[in-house]
Amino acid sequence: MTAPCRMILDVDTGIDDALAIVYALRRPGIALEAVTTIFGNVDVATATRNTLQILELAGRGEVPVAPGAAHALVRPFARGAAHIHGVNGLGEVELPAPRARPRDEHAADLIIRMARAHPGAITLCPVGPLTNAALALARAPEIAGLLREIVLMGGTLFHPGIPGIASPMADANFWNDAEAARIVLRSGAKLTLVGMDVTMKALLTPAMTRTIAAHGPAAATLMRIADFYVHAYQAQYPGIAGCGLHDPLAVAVAEDPSLVTAEAMQVDVELAGELTRGQLVADRRRTGKVQPNAAVCLDLDVPRFTERFVAAMRVSPAR
Amino acid sequence: MTAPCRMILDVDTGIDDALAIVYALRRPGIALEAVTTIFGNVDVATATRNTLQILELAGRGEVPVAPGAAHALVRPFARGAAHIHGVNGLGEVELPAPRARPRDEHAADLIIRMARAHPGAITLCPVGPLTNAALALARAPEIAGLLREIVLMGGTLFHPGIPGIASPMADANFWNDAEAARIVLRSGAKLTLVGMDVTMKALLTPAMTRTIAAHGPAAATLMRIADFYVHAYQAQYPGIAGCGLHDPLAVAVAEDPSLVTAEAMQVDVELAGELTRGQLVADRRRTGKVQPNAAVCLDLDVPRFTERFVAAMRVSPAR
Amino acid sequence: MTAPCRMILDVDTGIDDALAIVYALRRPGIALEAVTTIFGNVDVATATRNTLQILELAGRGEVPVAPGAAHALVRPFARGAAHIHGVNGLGEVELPAPRARPRDEHAADLIIRMARAHPGAITLCPVGPLTNAALALARAPEIAGLLREIVLMGGTLFHPGIPGIASPMADANFWNDAEAARIVLRSGAKLTLVGMDVTMKALLTPAMTRTIAAHGPAAATLMRIADFYVHAYQAQYPGIAGCGLHDPLAVAVAEDPSLVTAEAMQVDVELAGELTRGQLVADRRRTGKVQPNAAVCLDLDVPRFTERFVAAMRVSPAR
Amino acid sequence: MTAPCRMILDVDTGIDDALAIVYALRRPGIALEAVTTIFGNVDVATATRNTLQILELAGRGEVPVAPGAAHALVRPFARGAAHIHGVNGLGEVELPAPRARPRDEHAADLIIRMARAHPGAITLCPVGPLTNAALALARAPEIAGLLREIVLMGGTLFHPGIPGIASPMADANFWNDAEAARIVLRSGAKLTLVGMDVTMKALLTPAMTRTIAAHGPAAATLMRIADFYVHAYQAQYPGIAGCGLHDPLAVAVAEDPSLVTAEAMQVDVELAGELTRGQLVADRRRTGKVQPNAAVCLDLDVPRFTERFVAAMRVSPAR
Repeated sequence: MTAPCRMILDVDTGIDDALAIVYALRRPGIALEAVTTIFGNVDVATATRNTLQILELAGRGEVPVAPGAAHALVRPFARGAAHIHGVNGLGEVELPAPRARPRDEHAADLIIRMARAHPGAITLCPVGPLTNAALALARAPEIAGLLREIVLMGGTLFHPGIPGIASPMADANFWNDAEAARIVLRSGAKLTLVGMDVTMKALLTPAMTRTIAAHGPAAATLMRIADFYVHAYQAQYPGIAGCGLHDPLAVAVAEDPSLVTAEAMQVDVELAGELTRGQLVADRRRTGKVQPNAAVCLDLDVPRFTERFVAAMRVSPAR
Repeated sequence: MTAPCRMILDVDTGIDDALAIVYALRRPGIALEAVTTIFGNVDVATATRNTLQILELAGRGEVPVAPGAAHALVRPFARGAAHIHGVNGLGEVELPAPRARPRDEHAADLIIRMARAHPGAITLCPVGPLTNAALALARAPEIAGLLREIVLMGGTLFHPGIPGIASPMADANFWNDAEAARIVLRSGAKLTLVGMDVTMKALLTPAMTRTIAAHGPAAATLMRIADFYVHAYQAQYPGIAGCGLHDPLAVAVAEDPSLVTAEAMQVDVELAGELTRGQLVADRRRTGKVQPNAAVCLDLDVPRFTERFVAAMRVSPAR
Repeated sequence: MTAPCRMILDVDTGIDDALAIVYALRRPGIALEAVTTIFGNVDVATATRNTLQILELAGRGEVPVAPGAAHALVRPFARGAAHIHGVNGLGEVELPAPRARPRDEHAADLIIRMARAHPGAITLCPVGPLTNAALALARAPEIAGLLREIVLMGGTLFHPGIPGIASPMADANFWNDAEAARIVLRSGAKLTLVGMDVTMKALLTPAMTRTIAAHGPAAATLMRIADFYVHAYQAQYPGIAGCGLHDPLAVAVAEDPSLVTAEAMQVDVELAGELTRGQLVADRRRTGKVQPNAAVCLDLDVPRFTERFVAAMRVSPAR
Repeated sequence: MTAPCRMILDVDTGIDDALAIVYALRRPGIALEAVTTIFGNVDVATATRNTLQILELAGRGEVPVAPGAAHALVRPFARGAAHIHGVNGLGEVELPAPRARPRDEHAADLIIRMARAHPGAITLCPVGPLTNAALALARAPEIAGLLREIVLMGGTLFHPGIPGIASPMADANFWNDAEAARIVLRSGAKLTLVGMDVTMKALLTPAMTRTIAAHGPAAATLMRIADFYVHAYQAQYPGIAGCGLHDPLAVAVAEDPSLVTAEAMQVDVELAGELTRGQLVADRRRTGKVQPNAAVCLDLDVPRFTERFVAAMRVSPAR
């Protein structure tokens, strides 16, 4: 039996971030060591508050939460995604004010400290913009070799009619901080990219939310939040069966890469394009000069992930 | 029975350009009204000479040939593709010096003149960089509505291990003059893009060249040229069965779009990217705001095209 | 005595374009062979009409006028400068409908034809965006060596508090078609750039317009138009003494370069910048590798130009 | 009498960095609290070693030295400036191996810690690429308000024949990490830019080095180093009287802004340009919407600075 995945989860909570947190808490193969927060779906203060609330909803308020970047490296924070996640980031569901407080340690410092303290042991799982990860890697480049792996949500290669993306060629996380994405991609760390090529295959449907909600009050509350997200997708993209489980899938892949099919590629991110800023660029030419620096997920075992996700969401009520 | 496709073929001859010229001459559904030439695989003077030689090899030296741009709109001509097409652009096969002379009319002027003279009748088929087409459209924007269609070789969307492309994200024609490509894409003309997504499915194999060469001396000469191209691909990309029939396929699609499956898309080309300059960018988001401006070929009826190509190459010797 | 400057004036008329036309008509050292028109201050149709009206106001309706580009090479025409030139481009002064008609020859074709017909004799003087000049040079690169010179309004190097410019780093003409500017700068033609570094030293003041208006009815009409321009500057830039005589100065320099101090420089234009698109870039490093390709005007003999301008504006009424 | 300037000096030592360190040590108005190091003229390890050696040469080996970034935020470290500073960064003069060791604290962390510990008291003076400053400001944005000021060497507006710059439009420090420059310019900190507009007026001549060298052995050693720099300029730029005292002038301005004339401007840096990457862009339009975010030095009191510099270089020998 392999050791559990000791994870730092970096979130911009956000509904699918909330689901990702619960997934990480509930999976036996994951030890959620800390949660770091970032701007993205909402501003970083809201993301931090939401994160604390979700941890307490799941009865795990003791997990340390460290707030990080309020905006991208070279651009201001423009706006979140209220049309998808609600103004409060949790589908307008009001949870009790958090009892715990965030740590007085910056997300990037926490990442550096833990990577150094546990060489080869920590998986960093950023599911929002990559600013915190980039700040840690730029400040302490050696942690690229100390982290076990970085499994991130972002880096979409193909966009065949994908809804919800930030530009025709970039997903929201790469779009929101392209420079940070480049720092991470070029860091030398072991990398897995879980982009919308696979996350749009991992849909949360109304049938699934009903099944989960029946489990108990905490699960029901979580699914009230999730329903906002499902409806937002369905309103915006007629004909879609549900919403994409972007962030939970990244967490799932960090625990168990056998859920996906991935290809080792040489990848980078466009910083300067007028139409392509933030786009993941893979050099797939058969030239022999290509040096893969990331595993890019291309396909998903949908039934296996779906079953695992539904089971994981049966969160117990907070005591 | 539909009227034949009255074609202006715009070439940077080049081996597959040569095959495209012969294909256009030999197909009953195509009336090759004129050939215009451009830099690309070789410089424009060489492309012009090669074009005259191929027309004469096929016994059709009377087809008018008008030379066009020697370099891209905003960049100098750097170098051709001698490793693929040979230094002389025709696989180092020496053909007799052409007897005909190119016209004293610029390619762009010829395109404008013919589009105006035959409203709705002329198909422009550029299989090299799009500079000539762009100069015509920029100088006389109304021809966008006078041409029957522009069917061009270029505009590759997906690059899964494609050999021979100019950059990770752009094919040679878009790469060689991205500004010209934008002028064409935004011109309002009816557009079909025949990119490497389909042309790499249209392979010319050694078995095919042997079959064709057996037909007679002119076909044999043409296949000696083609063999250089086949070998160049095989040397550069181990395991490939042949070389891509990029330019002949564009001509074939202009005559008979039923050979391919295409999707109407809103497309543009990146001009400013560091990694993505020249990339075709399709906005495939399901937003309802997207306005398709081109049909992008995505799949090919390989057997039907292959059979038709082999038959067309059985060119009679020049008299 | 030197031969007169045989000029093609390329305008986006526009108030200072109107003054430039009159200046060119009235100066003994200039033979105005033709006027070509372009989008810019107004759309190209309005620029053409305004040009015909100004020629007729000056009693010179026989000068050929050839309309050119309606928009930049790779971008649509967004909007003119109604706040500076009025909605009709002539300060809301209504002139009689023109009796003459524009030629049925594109501006770029006219430029090419005349350059070839009179090798070494024609000075091209573009005072709007450079699209027409670029189309001519891209279509017929040899005219770079056949034109006597291109003297253009545009290409500003330093911007110390200059009002009226299109972006912090670019003047309107380079901004409006940066790709065209690059084609012209790299064409190999003899080039003089008359940018806002000098044209903002050539101010038209209310005192000057009063002096000119006293000359007669045509001059008075012209100065009613000019007053709009003077007031627009004064409203927008408090403390300024008048408006910049951008376009007349370019014409004046074409006739008599002794009016300005210029420096030979290696120059190019930025196409891709986020903040610097359209900026003139001069490589002034003392490296020995620099190859000057243009004379950039840096200083002006203000009194001599002012006197000459006032005298030239004493246009006779049209008969 | 004003309080002394408590300075963190951020260097890529480098010859003029060495002179800047000595200048900071010797001026009564400056308290050099720490030196942080960075890639640039040399790699960061060499810069760190050189810094320790210069501090010890000046008898001040106790000043803390904290190493920082080894490369720019989003680009690798390409190469230093051996042709200007020598391969060892100190003009090939070999100094004794340093006795002190660098601190085990990253430059960015030191900057953050000291800014927080002494609110309003610390002047940060970066004279190399701005990566360390940017990492500190991105990680702890609040220090923008806690630093007394950032006085940096870089941000050149006009380049009239300036030798030694990295590109036609950017000085080496902005060129070497344009993204970092943007982070600093947009940080909200009080900013003074000491660019080559003024530093090229602050020349170190052979006569000056002779005067200084006569003072004693340490000064003589320092001037042997400086002579390499003077000769490098004179070899590369014939006719120049000496080398630019870029870094010492930034330190001097931090102590005494009355040495220069500066203008408050709204400034930013170009990240995406093909010709202008790293260029300082000032919006000097008189629009009323401009919000100054930096003082840009435009002129220098040359005699006063020169005298002060020569006096400061009379460093005592190390004991």
